[in-house]
Amino acid sequence: MRTLKVETGRPYNIIIENGVLENCGEYIKKVSKAMRVAVISDTNVFPIYGDKIVDSLTKSGYQVCSFTFDAGEKSKNLITVSKIYDFLAENHITRIDLIVALGGGVTGDMAGFAAATYLRGIDFVQIPTSLLAQVDSSVGGKTGVDIGAGKNLVGSFWQPVLVLIDSNTLKTLPQYYFEDGMAEVIKYGCIKDKALFEKLENENAAECIDHIIYNCVAIKRDVVSHDEREKGERALLNFGHTIGHALEKIGGFTNLSHGQAVAIGMCMITKASEKANLTEKGSAKRIEKLCKKYNLPTYSDISKSEIAKAASSDKKTNGSSIKLALLKEIGESYLEKTEISELEKFISK
Amino acid sequence: MRTLKVETGRPYNIIIENGVLENCGEYIKKVSKAMRVAVISDTNVFPIYGDKIVDSLTKSGYQVCSFTFDAGEKSKNLITVSKIYDFLAENHITRIDLIVALGGGVTGDMAGFAAATYLRGIDFVQIPTSLLAQVDSSVGGKTGVDIGAGKNLVGSFWQPVLVLIDSNTLKTLPQYYFEDGMAEVIKYGCIKDKALFEKLENENAAECIDHIIYNCVAIKRDVVSHDEREKGERALLNFGHTIGHALEKIGGFTNLSHGQAVAIGMCMITKASEKANLTEKGSAKRIEKLCKKYNLPTYSDISKSEIAKAASSDKKTNGSSIKLALLKEIGESYLEKTEISELEKFISK
Repeated sequence: MRTLKVETGRPYNIIIENGVLENCGEYIKKVSKAMRVAVISDTNVFPIYGDKIVDSLTKSGYQVCSFTFDAGEKSKNLITVSKIYDFLAENHITRIDLIVALGGGVTGDMAGFAAATYLRGIDFVQIPTSLLAQVDSSVGGKTGVDIGAGKNLVGSFWQPVLVLIDSNTLKTLPQYYFEDGMAEVIKYGCIKDKALFEKLENENAAECIDHIIYNCVAIKRDVVSHDEREKGERALLNFGHTIGHALEKIGGFTNLSHGQAVAIGMCMITKASEKANLTEKGSAKRIEKLCKKYNLPTYSDISKSEIAKAASSDKKTNGSSIKLALLKEIGESYLEKTEISELEKFISK
Repeated sequence: MRTLKVETGRPYNIIIENGVLENCGEYIKKVSKAMRVAVISDTNVFPIYGDKIVDSLTKSGYQVCSFTFDAGEKSKNLITVSKIYDFLAENHITRIDLIVALGGGVTGDMAGFAAATYLRGIDFVQIPTSLLAQVDSSVGGKTGVDIGAGKNLVGSFWQPVLVLIDSNTLKTLPQYYFEDGMAEVIKYGCIKDKALFEKLENENAAECIDHIIYNCVAIKRDVVSHDEREKGERALLNFGHTIGHALEKIGGFTNLSHGQAVAIGMCMITKASEKANLTEKGSAKRIEKLCKKYNLPTYSDISKSEIAKAASSDKKTNGSSIKLALLKEIGESYLEKTEISELEKFISK
């Protein structure tokens, strides 16, 4: 078992252990005085792990209820959240009670948002079951849902009281989702950890995934502990995401997975920053090669002007400018304040 | 001009001044670097003050847009909030921009919740135009909306960056709404300020309303500064509200105004606590007399068991118990942890 402590306003632990899922009740008992626990999950994940989770929680003395929604990003909206609120009220979940988010990023983001806003905030535990959620979305307290105008435009910063990561769950995950998560793993190497990047180049990630998850979570933990509400450094985690989000938006959130879009975004922005002499030469090529190794796309034929236009409504925008996360070299990143109006020129170089 | 500073996580000022509304832009300029301001208001208030607010903001250099919803508690739901989100996105409101909540409690609660959750939180300014909002809901950062299961069951703690109180607005307010607000004013006297209570007994509140607003806001400021997230002392502000909320719920939120329900709640709970020898004798009679002076009801013929049942789903419930705010005497209050199952017996004494 490995434990990482996140030092946000409300500190919490991330526990990484094979098999932790079956014993979740014991771990949760140490951090929650709840009487009742509401497990929020989706139609893909609940049938696989729901019984184990409910059994463990029940054995630990909790009254357990569960809510399942149709799997997929299309469910991540205010209509589903509204149903979750009604479910929580019907099941008499009170302020001392607990939500458990069991699933991938969609589940964690949405159940976290429900926890942040039901009764003005109740505790929740993240049990991420996808690689993307394990290395990224389950840690750091960003919760949210999509609205018509864009992804995650509505949400809260709300930290979980505990994150339980069991890499055994990745074994039941289709390869596509594993690759989706690898884009975020590569991102951590790019922005903060040259040794991780080289490990990904030289080894097979699937064979040392526990080590990789630990590395990624430790990086995210450090960044988030310094900058919980993304006033500064945390924006480095958006490396590849300004273009990535724009590509997702243009594709109606169906053409590309988040990881695929981020992979293209990392390659595109690094090509541009290399041309602008901001990044060590050869970095973009290395990122491209690594993305290809994990079956991730590196190129999009959507026009630069369309991408820049879609990026201009990115939620990271501050007035007329945006802080772009760029690489100095592999393993070292920084933020460059850029006028939105200059973005097209920058990426078209 | 009187200024009160609220020392919450993000400190902010409450400015009480006649005519502050016409100069709101100047005051807002001191606390916000926004480019754009979205004014959220309702169909009652915007036609009266909208132009003045928009003019002042425009003069101060802001790009201003405005969103108006149908006045009334029935609008305070996720559907209206969803429309507000869409409006904010369409009008390119970014993280540095600002929401101004112009109106009564419904507007402040709902616009505040939109501010708390749009892009995971942007700044907002409260310009409360009802007595209830001026002395209570605009201060302290409680935001929220109603769902089918109850009032304010969804929300966030999200402090405004500024509160501008202009008691001139009360002159355009129907008498009914003034009386509605007086219940909260009486509450402050009951829980914290014997001199205020006696002033309300001996004078006409309407004639010294600026002084009264200042007193009430100062009390709320002190309580909220000590206990932003209602872990303790802040629950004193719920005096009369456990029963009040139950009565509102039973009446489908249309039979009684919030103030009327709270007035009955204060009388009923104090009668009960007197009988239990927890409160100085004669207190309930004085509260009743004062409520009647301001045309507020003091009695409901709904059965105690029905009230207790409705109160059991109050959002202040912690597992099986609730902290009841009770008076020791007029001007002094305390919290009594009570089992929900005992509540009916307590109020039936």
